[in-house]
Amino acid sequence: MDVGALVDRARTGEPRAVARLISLVEDASPALREVMATLAPLTGSARVIGLTGSPGVGKSTTTSAVVGALRRRSLRVGVLAVDPSSPFSGGALLGDRVRMQEHALDPEVYIRSMASRGHLGGLSWSTPQALRVLDAAGCDVVLVETVGVGQSEVEVAGLADTTVVLLAPGMGDGVQAAKAGILEVGDVFVVNKADREGASAAVRDLRQMLSLAEGSDVGWTPPVVTTVASRGEGLDELMAALDEHWAWLAGPGLHRRRTARAAAEIEAIALAALRSRLGDLRGAGPGGLADLAADVVAGRTDPWAAADVLVDAVTTAAR
Amino acid sequence: MDVGALVDRARTGEPRAVARLISLVEDASPALREVMATLAPLTGSARVIGLTGSPGVGKSTTTSAVVGALRRRSLRVGVLAVDPSSPFSGGALLGDRVRMQEHALDPEVYIRSMASRGHLGGLSWSTPQALRVLDAAGCDVVLVETVGVGQSEVEVAGLADTTVVLLAPGMGDGVQAAKAGILEVGDVFVVNKADREGASAAVRDLRQMLSLAEGSDVGWTPPVVTTVASRGEGLDELMAALDEHWAWLAGPGLHRRRTARAAAEIEAIALAALRSRLGDLRGAGPGGLADLAADVVAGRTDPWAAADVLVDAVTTAAR
Repeated sequence: MDVGALVDRARTGEPRAVARLISLVEDASPALREVMATLAPLTGSARVIGLTGSPGVGKSTTTSAVVGALRRRSLRVGVLAVDPSSPFSGGALLGDRVRMQEHALDPEVYIRSMASRGHLGGLSWSTPQALRVLDAAGCDVVLVETVGVGQSEVEVAGLADTTVVLLAPGMGDGVQAAKAGILEVGDVFVVNKADREGASAAVRDLRQMLSLAEGSDVGWTPPVVTTVASRGEGLDELMAALDEHWAWLAGPGLHRRRTARAAAEIEAIALAALRSRLGDLRGAGPGGLADLAADVVAGRTDPWAAADVLVDAVTTAAR
Repeated sequence: MDVGALVDRARTGEPRAVARLISLVEDASPALREVMATLAPLTGSARVIGLTGSPGVGKSTTTSAVVGALRRRSLRVGVLAVDPSSPFSGGALLGDRVRMQEHALDPEVYIRSMASRGHLGGLSWSTPQALRVLDAAGCDVVLVETVGVGQSEVEVAGLADTTVVLLAPGMGDGVQAAKAGILEVGDVFVVNKADREGASAAVRDLRQMLSLAEGSDVGWTPPVVTTVASRGEGLDELMAALDEHWAWLAGPGLHRRRTARAAAEIEAIALAALRSRLGDLRGAGPGGLADLAADVVAGRTDPWAAADVLVDAVTTAAR
């Protein structure tokens, strides 16, 4: 496979080349490393916006509305719709994605549904790689939409330059927000379905919780925007809030976020590599894990001393 | 600290020495390795029974009843009550533990509540270490009781020689059981609160699901016992089922389980050690993670190549 040619085709805006590259990184194909090395100098220009919230708050509708607003600015847009609970992955429009169909035929919009393959719940480590592909393919903005389940909100915040947390009235979201720690990760909050009963109470509760929360970003107070995404209401205000955060980020703030993101990614890959080396030692000959385990059961050694032997074996194998 | 003397006191049945040893391993104190090395030759004689189930099925009541039955056989019993959702840990009787108060003053029963400190949810890696302490302290049987949340059922099964899965009628447990994969891990199933409506339906559903499930243990068909633990009903049948499984395990089956358990434990400790070495490199000078992350952001390298550098640094640091 000619990775360089594939990347060139992706950069000219060929959707199939983009899809192929994402599949290569998602499947951890042997070409993954070559792909990532080829993409490296081409990345860093995309603005990454994460959108997260509980099921039913209107994430897909909001994402679709934001895509529309960005397209009116003639920007190339990528959408990664990550569903940590779905075993499906691929280019097809899945379930909720039907709400994004209005953009499905737009050649300047890439929409990709990704299953989470992370063993630990939440976002898969292939999400940042797919993001890199869309970045290198010339997307001006990449939207990462993810269902707020467990830790995935926090993880999407780790990926994004700006994280949008969506809530809807009457879903007990106030409590959920406080529990899941999303108050800390949101740069912009949206109370969607603002035409519903309880919207102003939800906004008030949220504002109060935000005023109590310890903001990690000095100088940025997360705004609360109300929208009815299905009718486009509040979209201008949301776009203004996104732009304001982007402007605020510019410079050292953005670099700091992105460096932290890269560090987490590198660490995750390194840990996976070390874990895989441990796995290679499973049951391997004398001094392998099976022998060590038998020694522990027999009381000839303890798990900590045995782990030392294993760590030594891993590091020796690396030589 | 004289670890040897502390272990000697624990073996003579001094509860405070046992509690102190568990605290040492739980807190990952500097003495942890010495404690584990001292305990190693003293372990392996305790029979480990895991009890798991959703909140409200009657785990503590059942555990207490089983403790009573074991005490009538004059056996020394340890109880580790692991609550993955609790931040509390220690020797005190917490919440539910009140149901075990009848044994609290029995010098031949050690009861210990443990919080889960596992970062990945579920059982903490300190649970197997605490189990080792109780084993070395001369407990004939150790009961590990854990709330069935997420993966904790599967993890308790990894610790136990015999895993008891508890259900109660009318809690939608049938579906839960199928989802959480507990059908695969249960050696003995208990439908508790069998005087409630729906008990026979629950037993029937469970039997049917078990007949469809692929049992991993050839030659063992998990029995379904009905109990009303609060009144001691069905306790004899439960004890008989436990003894039958223990007899079935004897020999190679038991050794195989325990070896697999030790292997998982060693691997977890080794992985934690490697992870901690990675952590030590965070932000460390030239070639450290901070530098690598900045290179990735600048497009000078990609996360995979950077991870290679990090892994090399970890393994070099080990020399």
